[in-house]
Amino acid sequence: MIKTSSDSFARLGWLITPHGTVETPVFMPVGSQATVKGVSPRQLKEIDIRMILSNNYHLYLRPGIEIIRNLGGLHKFMDWDRAILTDSGGFQVFSLSHLRRIDEEGVKFRSHIDGSEHFLTPELAIELQEGLGSDVMMALDICPSFQDTPEQVREATQRTHRWAERCLKAQTRSDQALFGIVQGGFNEEWRKESAGILASLDFPGYALGGLSLGEPREQTQKMIGLTVPYLPQSKPRYLMGVGSPEDILFGVEQGIDMFDSVLPTRVARNGGLYTSKGRINIRNSRWKEAAQAIDPACHCYTCSRFSAAYLHHLFRAEELLAYTLATLHNLSFMYNFMLKVRANIAEGTFKAFKEDFLAGYRSSDEQVRIAQKQKWLENQEQREGNNGKDQ
Amino acid sequence: MIKTSSDSFARLGWLITPHGTVETPVFMPVGSQATVKGVSPRQLKEIDIRMILSNNYHLYLRPGIEIIRNLGGLHKFMDWDRAILTDSGGFQVFSLSHLRRIDEEGVKFRSHIDGSEHFLTPELAIELQEGLGSDVMMALDICPSFQDTPEQVREATQRTHRWAERCLKAQTRSDQALFGIVQGGFNEEWRKESAGILASLDFPGYALGGLSLGEPREQTQKMIGLTVPYLPQSKPRYLMGVGSPEDILFGVEQGIDMFDSVLPTRVARNGGLYTSKGRINIRNSRWKEAAQAIDPACHCYTCSRFSAAYLHHLFRAEELLAYTLATLHNLSFMYNFMLKVRANIAEGTFKAFKEDFLAGYRSSDEQVRIAQKQKWLENQEQREGNNGKDQ
Repeated sequence: MIKTSSDSFARLGWLITPHGTVETPVFMPVGSQATVKGVSPRQLKEIDIRMILSNNYHLYLRPGIEIIRNLGGLHKFMDWDRAILTDSGGFQVFSLSHLRRIDEEGVKFRSHIDGSEHFLTPELAIELQEGLGSDVMMALDICPSFQDTPEQVREATQRTHRWAERCLKAQTRSDQALFGIVQGGFNEEWRKESAGILASLDFPGYALGGLSLGEPREQTQKMIGLTVPYLPQSKPRYLMGVGSPEDILFGVEQGIDMFDSVLPTRVARNGGLYTSKGRINIRNSRWKEAAQAIDPACHCYTCSRFSAAYLHHLFRAEELLAYTLATLHNLSFMYNFMLKVRANIAEGTFKAFKEDFLAGYRSSDEQVRIAQKQKWLENQEQREGNNGKDQ
Repeated sequence: MIKTSSDSFARLGWLITPHGTVETPVFMPVGSQATVKGVSPRQLKEIDIRMILSNNYHLYLRPGIEIIRNLGGLHKFMDWDRAILTDSGGFQVFSLSHLRRIDEEGVKFRSHIDGSEHFLTPELAIELQEGLGSDVMMALDICPSFQDTPEQVREATQRTHRWAERCLKAQTRSDQALFGIVQGGFNEEWRKESAGILASLDFPGYALGGLSLGEPREQTQKMIGLTVPYLPQSKPRYLMGVGSPEDILFGVEQGIDMFDSVLPTRVARNGGLYTSKGRINIRNSRWKEAAQAIDPACHCYTCSRFSAAYLHHLFRAEELLAYTLATLHNLSFMYNFMLKVRANIAEGTFKAFKEDFLAGYRSSDEQVRIAQKQKWLENQEQREGNNGKDQ
């Protein structure tokens, strides 16, 4: 993995994996359950997606890592011969599962699917990801919650560092890259400290965790800005769970190389479609008779073959094809957006591109961000309630 | 449309339409709402589907025929440049809508979507289908219900004949073929009479209606057998709403050329997958670790790229890709099945093929048939209840 840099802190890079080279900055579509929702791997390839994210937590619970390993690993299982990054499951244990008890050894939790009890340790997180055979594995971290006291955040961050070391020691395969995850909540000192400690462990790549929880963009930006200088120039930097066009621009500007988010695929399934002028909702009746494509500037399958009126009809009629065509469009949009990001970095015009894009782009993702935080908090309350019942 | 015949009553034919020639016997996938559920038109073309069915009733209610006409017709709207047959909406008015009042002029009904009131006449059914621009239009008919008295069935059948004449008179476009629909309930004399009267009206093609309501196969077979001799040899014969592999074999044997059914796509979405040995349910846990394809003899996208275990996982995880891959497989199965049907007719070996196939095929469609009738009756009761409320 070699990196070069350009104007501002934005930089170009190449992630060299056993399943192809990935140009960065890159946006990775999310396929938690071994499928990017609504599209086939062949359709992803047609867009020319080079790398996707999948999830150890989901696949461990269903169908089980052993099954995937016996079938030849995750790439073969889902017929995807390009790069895959797997999240360790840390974030999901804290955001999806019930009854979490963390101690130094690991985290005990109940499956959100069937309530069964499981114990995830740093060593197991690596063993499972080695079973999946992803190109990039993530260390098991502890993502602090909104309700945590400063002491709890500090404790979680320090434990994350000890777990990162254990993950490194547990690794047995040499064809997979293991990334460390910087935590530290929204505390400036702890963020810096976390970046410094992880940098000293010499991971082949670094992720910034805990920054996709719906905090205001300014705060998130600040945390990214003060973390990045502590990470080695030559290694890739991955901002976890962040992927709206605007957030990507801010991240790239600060030297982030990799992004992932369910946003483009999730909003697509609700009729939210990205265009060069902002996000539209195709369910809106103003698209009822529209003969033009969703985005006439777009050359994806959806835009080159279908009118906005047809998409509108499919959504109103709740037809499955709606979700596929909308997802194809949004992923194509993101792919082309990243292509432009990289081209402008190469030309030294990234800052102008960023301002130009944001000036013409009517955002509604800020609302989504707020709604996400709201939902997270509600889930949290619900989980707390469940925990009470379970105990 | 030219026909040649071969062993038994089974026969080969070619349906020549403005959107390509269709070899018969043919199975038409159903895309009532201008999309075959779960797959894109490009995917249908990859299977080499030549003709699909769409529905005047559904498209009239949503998005409205005027919108489709203004956007260049149904072919352009849904990006399908091959043949389309549209049902007139007669069957759907009687099976889906509420508050039906039939008089000589037409049928008054309430939309199953929003309760709005509509009045469909034979003339309007043709005008709407001309707006859609389908290759084959169907006359507006009256499909008797299970509860109808013999007098009501006879009355409905005779009115169907008068409406058929009005449909012929209403037609203005010469690039669309209008098919008449034989009714007559399960009464032998009325079936014969209906076939004879419609034959005298000289339609370019004939459909057998009212035979997909879940009656025992023997009775349906009998009705087909006594109707066919009254229809002209040189014109295509279409058995409406029938499309299980077994039913197709029995139909072809009696000289039927065209079939349609939601069965292969609907059962696919429930995990029911056709194989040469019968239908399996991929949700069953015996497929959990199965490395082989659903049907190793099949060369479709699904079978050539994915294990049964992956399909099983997608269904258990309720992932959208499950429905797409299952639908692609079942439609590929049906396409290849019809290819074999035609090849065996050409070779004069159809009867042997039929017996061979049925001997190796474990059916579960008979259960589906019974369940369909049950559901139809329940809907009927529910509608009657609603009608009471509405009035």
